[in-house]
Amino acid sequence: MTTQHVDNTTGQIDFVGAGPGDPELLTVAALRAFEAADVVLHDRLISDEVLILAGASAKLVDVGKAGFGPSWDQGDINDLLVAHGQNGNRVVRLKSGDPTVFGRLDEEIEAVEAAGLSWSIVPGITAASAAVAGIGQSLTRRGRNSSIRFLTGHDMKGFADHDWAALARRGEVAAIYMGKKSARFIQGRLIMHGAVRNTPITLVENASRPDQRVLATTLDRLPADLAQADMNGPALTLYGLAPREAVQALTEFNKEHA
Amino acid sequence: MTTQHVDNTTGQIDFVGAGPGDPELLTVAALRAFEAADVVLHDRLISDEVLILAGASAKLVDVGKAGFGPSWDQGDINDLLVAHGQNGNRVVRLKSGDPTVFGRLDEEIEAVEAAGLSWSIVPGITAASAAVAGIGQSLTRRGRNSSIRFLTGHDMKGFADHDWAALARRGEVAAIYMGKKSARFIQGRLIMHGAVRNTPITLVENASRPDQRVLATTLDRLPADLAQADMNGPALTLYGLAPREAVQALTEFNKEHA
Repeated sequence: MTTQHVDNTTGQIDFVGAGPGDPELLTVAALRAFEAADVVLHDRLISDEVLILAGASAKLVDVGKAGFGPSWDQGDINDLLVAHGQNGNRVVRLKSGDPTVFGRLDEEIEAVEAAGLSWSIVPGITAASAAVAGIGQSLTRRGRNSSIRFLTGHDMKGFADHDWAALARRGEVAAIYMGKKSARFIQGRLIMHGAVRNTPITLVENASRPDQRVLATTLDRLPADLAQADMNGPALTLYGLAPREAVQALTEFNKEHA
Repeated sequence: MTTQHVDNTTGQIDFVGAGPGDPELLTVAALRAFEAADVVLHDRLISDEVLILAGASAKLVDVGKAGFGPSWDQGDINDLLVAHGQNGNRVVRLKSGDPTVFGRLDEEIEAVEAAGLSWSIVPGITAASAAVAGIGQSLTRRGRNSSIRFLTGHDMKGFADHDWAALARRGEVAAIYMGKKSARFIQGRLIMHGAVRNTPITLVENASRPDQRVLATTLDRLPADLAQADMNGPALTLYGLAPREAVQALTEFNKEHA
């Protein structure tokens, strides 16, 4: 189902998408690779409900690059992948969402390939898909937007002016990964390029997980509402989309009856 | 894991992503919904390997909108969804890839909601993720592209000039759905807006399936190579990406030894 570069050594590295957090959103292929693994090197954001599915004898290593624990740089992760592979292990490199979307996959494949190890990619459900499903909407819709852009908040400071202008047009939709810290910057640029102030923006924190939270706001109110919401989990920012009305009503009903 | 709008009627409609074709790329949630279904309304492009996983008593209905058989329009599909739901059935509406990406999901949700039926969305692996995994690449890469755009070839004639200009820049990457027929148009616009003629373009036909085929070409050669390749299956066009070198070599090796 995926790329596989077969070589002579016995180790194998599977780059596996863990999806957004709900273990039911793992693919069958991911589950199989995970159960067969000798070693699992995983990101910090992988949920416990997913990690518990690893084979009983699998060694789990948190190579998360942010947070409070010891810090891993990309070189160390590459070295560890190669070392475990060269020892003949079946290694799963478990990444949140889809490894091909903001997953820093290429650096790791290059290291594994340079060491002559076999590898494969098992795609996963990316956060944008889970977040938009969580608000009952689509990433694309006939007559509204015929394209969808995935962006990372980290890199939007390098965005060209015509990108901002395109994004500022009515009807545009974008999924912004890691966009919380850059919310004020994004707001300023979009308004400067003519975006309507009441353009809907929806943040979905912990998409697909039991603690999923939805913040429905507008471009105008984004920084203030975000500050007040105090979101600590991973959040996906949906620019140009509001929750479907029925979902919004249901969310409010659940809140009232919690 | 998904949106659910609960109401008084007994029927339930699950909008389920079937992924790109490999049954191993179904999610666990999709598999469960599928096994529990009384009725499955599916697109034309769903593979037999996926359809065989439906519960033994499930009624399968092909509501594909293209091809040779009887033609279904969106209104007929909506009516059928509602009718089966109102009869108290558990209905799976199975869509290729991810239902939130070029899946015409909103029209169907609106019909189901208007009838007061419960529904949920189960996200799936979209074709872009499977296609890029199939050539050993990522949709985004640090230092190359910090955003990825999903487009549909059908709608690119309505693209504004600044969209073409943005796409024509070096390092841009886009996943073009249903882009075969519009290949010559896309080529013309991009070159007119300054795209380099040897920009890599890769078409992945039947991504993730045993009959997956990869056509590695360039913007310059796209229409000629595509005509020669005679691709009849669904294909995803990756603009700005070539297959990873090792994958390319492996593909050629397999061809020689076939």
